[in-house]
Amino acid sequence: MLEELKKEVYEANMLLPKYGLVTFTWGNVSGIDREKGLFAIKPSGVDYDKLKPEDMVIVDLDGNVVEGNYNPSSDTATHVEIYKAFPKVGGVVHTHSSYATSWAQAGRSIPCYGTTHADYYYGDVPCLRCLTKEEIDEGYEKNTGLLIVNEFKNQGIDPEAVSAALCKNHGPFAWGKDAMDAVHGAVVLEEVAKMAYRTELINPKVAEAPQVLQDKHYYRKHGANAYYGQGNK
Amino acid sequence: MLEELKKEVYEANMLLPKYGLVTFTWGNVSGIDREKGLFAIKPSGVDYDKLKPEDMVIVDLDGNVVEGNYNPSSDTATHVEIYKAFPKVGGVVHTHSSYATSWAQAGRSIPCYGTTHADYYYGDVPCLRCLTKEEIDEGYEKNTGLLIVNEFKNQGIDPEAVSAALCKNHGPFAWGKDAMDAVHGAVVLEEVAKMAYRTELINPKVAEAPQVLQDKHYYRKHGANAYYGQGNK
Amino acid sequence: MLEELKKEVYEANMLLPKYGLVTFTWGNVSGIDREKGLFAIKPSGVDYDKLKPEDMVIVDLDGNVVEGNYNPSSDTATHVEIYKAFPKVGGVVHTHSSYATSWAQAGRSIPCYGTTHADYYYGDVPCLRCLTKEEIDEGYEKNTGLLIVNEFKNQGIDPEAVSAALCKNHGPFAWGKDAMDAVHGAVVLEEVAKMAYRTELINPKVAEAPQVLQDKHYYRKHGANAYYGQGNK
Amino acid sequence: MLEELKKEVYEANMLLPKYGLVTFTWGNVSGIDREKGLFAIKPSGVDYDKLKPEDMVIVDLDGNVVEGNYNPSSDTATHVEIYKAFPKVGGVVHTHSSYATSWAQAGRSIPCYGTTHADYYYGDVPCLRCLTKEEIDEGYEKNTGLLIVNEFKNQGIDPEAVSAALCKNHGPFAWGKDAMDAVHGAVVLEEVAKMAYRTELINPKVAEAPQVLQDKHYYRKHGANAYYGQGNK
Repeated sequence: MLEELKKEVYEANMLLPKYGLVTFTWGNVSGIDREKGLFAIKPSGVDYDKLKPEDMVIVDLDGNVVEGNYNPSSDTATHVEIYKAFPKVGGVVHTHSSYATSWAQAGRSIPCYGTTHADYYYGDVPCLRCLTKEEIDEGYEKNTGLLIVNEFKNQGIDPEAVSAALCKNHGPFAWGKDAMDAVHGAVVLEEVAKMAYRTELINPKVAEAPQVLQDKHYYRKHGANAYYGQGNK
Repeated sequence: MLEELKKEVYEANMLLPKYGLVTFTWGNVSGIDREKGLFAIKPSGVDYDKLKPEDMVIVDLDGNVVEGNYNPSSDTATHVEIYKAFPKVGGVVHTHSSYATSWAQAGRSIPCYGTTHADYYYGDVPCLRCLTKEEIDEGYEKNTGLLIVNEFKNQGIDPEAVSAALCKNHGPFAWGKDAMDAVHGAVVLEEVAKMAYRTELINPKVAEAPQVLQDKHYYRKHGANAYYGQGNK
Repeated sequence: MLEELKKEVYEANMLLPKYGLVTFTWGNVSGIDREKGLFAIKPSGVDYDKLKPEDMVIVDLDGNVVEGNYNPSSDTATHVEIYKAFPKVGGVVHTHSSYATSWAQAGRSIPCYGTTHADYYYGDVPCLRCLTKEEIDEGYEKNTGLLIVNEFKNQGIDPEAVSAALCKNHGPFAWGKDAMDAVHGAVVLEEVAKMAYRTELINPKVAEAPQVLQDKHYYRKHGANAYYGQGNK
Repeated sequence: MLEELKKEVYEANMLLPKYGLVTFTWGNVSGIDREKGLFAIKPSGVDYDKLKPEDMVIVDLDGNVVEGNYNPSSDTATHVEIYKAFPKVGGVVHTHSSYATSWAQAGRSIPCYGTTHADYYYGDVPCLRCLTKEEIDEGYEKNTGLLIVNEFKNQGIDPEAVSAALCKNHGPFAWGKDAMDAVHGAVVLEEVAKMAYRTELINPKVAEAPQVLQDKHYYRKHGANAYYGQGNK
């Protein structure tokens, strides 16, 4: 069932250790088949070097396991909420990558200090508040997803223009058009987080990049007038 | 004698260079056979790339070498005290891993800034005081072990819930249910130490993670109601 | 056409991932044939692990593509201006390498704190201002090149003695006698940027290296009286 | 001539890139045959991946090349002075390793913050002053060696107990009983420099390790009562 999707999600998961984004089992990637309303996700707590494509767990958008020999990632309910609220998202990833997690632990959004950031994100990568005791007790993972979804709505952030969020005292979630694209974004986020950290240590009074420069780089790669890459070839 | 244990302890030692936790010979792992009251430990000052399973030294809980062609690790007496006082510990590791050692040199306990920490440790990883001149002269390594044991007792810290300690101006000791698990903990400690360092540089006024979030993550992985991984499958 | 040059430029591009200077496609190298007035440059947005020598795009000094199946790097117009204004330059490179980009994001020139810097650059590596809205709208990449060229002229900096510049909120450009030499310079710049960052964190009140020491090291490697290496052998 | 020594010095040089201590050609190792009064040293500016044992240059203690097809390292005169003044030194190494060089650029001696440092160095690793204009003009490399030698004498530092020095705004020199041991020391120095840097960022008010702890660790590994390793076996 969904063998192609399971293979792709498996391969996207295996990129996490390749890019140095995970230690042990601290991360998970999923990818969705929008027509069937089912997604494939990494099983919980299984070592990357023992993972096989057939170990991916198939889950529906109510969070029910439809197929699989393992428990799905403990963060499955977070993925569900992101898929339900962001209809163009085809893949979701969660890691504890070192720099992005450090910003999350510090409780700070990542400011846009340069074009590397602006090439991918239109504005800050937001750090969202912690869940309340009630939210945690009621359904920690589900409410983590709802927090992301609701904060993006309330703050007027377009999840296509800012494809990542930091959960305070926890770590990053990122998404993309499919599982591979989500992982690509997780790598970018870590690089951007690393350079923002160093930027502030070099100049504690640094300001964000001028808006006009942010616009230039973002729209050089996104939207109708993009001219980066081979898309218009 | 204890060939299986020696092999496991050898393999656990070889993970230290694999995970980047040691330079040269700066680290040692041991594992115990509780029924026999004997443990296997790395020989002192032998290069990792020359180490063989049969080089592991067998020591009893009085610190006497029972079998082996080499001197045991110079830190053997510290391991002895940990095994004697913490009956559920099956493996002990000491490294000079860079970030954990930097916290030890700075004389600071590692605060719990996020869920990566809370997934493994219930509360701070404590930095213990230096030994006094008398303690050093009387028996440096033995008293290092007694300090860990006594401080955990005095401070009311459960060695199962906090499976590591920093010795001030020295470095970390960590333990687990066996030698492999102890090394797993040493890797976690280094990651947690690295992210706490970066967290404070990003936000010098950062506070610890809310207790309710720490509780959630710790008990998601530990105790009767744990649901992370495949344990309940 | 220009097969030798394309091969060299290809190889120079492939050094960027080897030296850890690029993530994904975030960089480009070109090299020029001064007699023909044509240069070869990396195609835009093509993965390094799929790149082949024949994919290099041949461009003239008006920025027109003369040969190639791909769009040239989106930064091509910047390379054009550097080649036009700096006649001894044979290769140009742009990266988002982490430390150099962090200095650019911080909006600071890299001070000369030691002989590693002085061995390669005579004075600071300058951080240039951001482009204005008008400059961005009129021709972002071309005006980036003109900014480098004009600022070097206005500030009296010899592009042979300082073979790199930081574009504020963006990242570094570097150049050399050919494509390989330009990449060599990009590696040096990253090392120098990394050590300057650490130097300031170790001593926030640090001063630049004495001019007499800078002179000694620069002229030990450059000019008529150089004696480093095998050049005088 | 001295084929064994050239091979050993070649292998010691090749450890520099292996341990990540050099970029390009920024380092050199030598080793001496005390009976013959001749040492072998890396040729100047030759890439490590092209280096062969027979490329090592043989130099006498007046700094004259006795055998070799290449110019010796531009730092040869510094090595000469160290060999002449420190009779127990059998190998010398110079690198621009990143953390040690950053301390040198910051103009600060590396304080002893813990046992990793104390295991190898008895006290601070000193940062020496810059040379004066006269010293630079008269003989830069020779006077660098004389500065090290004279400052150790003036400050009463035993070159066996502190086997490294930082030259201000330049970088580290280290030495040992032979070329391999000198490189071992260069690796240790870089680790110690890295941890001291992080220690101060974690606790800006940190104090040095208690003298009694420094003594304990230093004498656990050095002198008549050492018991670390297999030396007493």
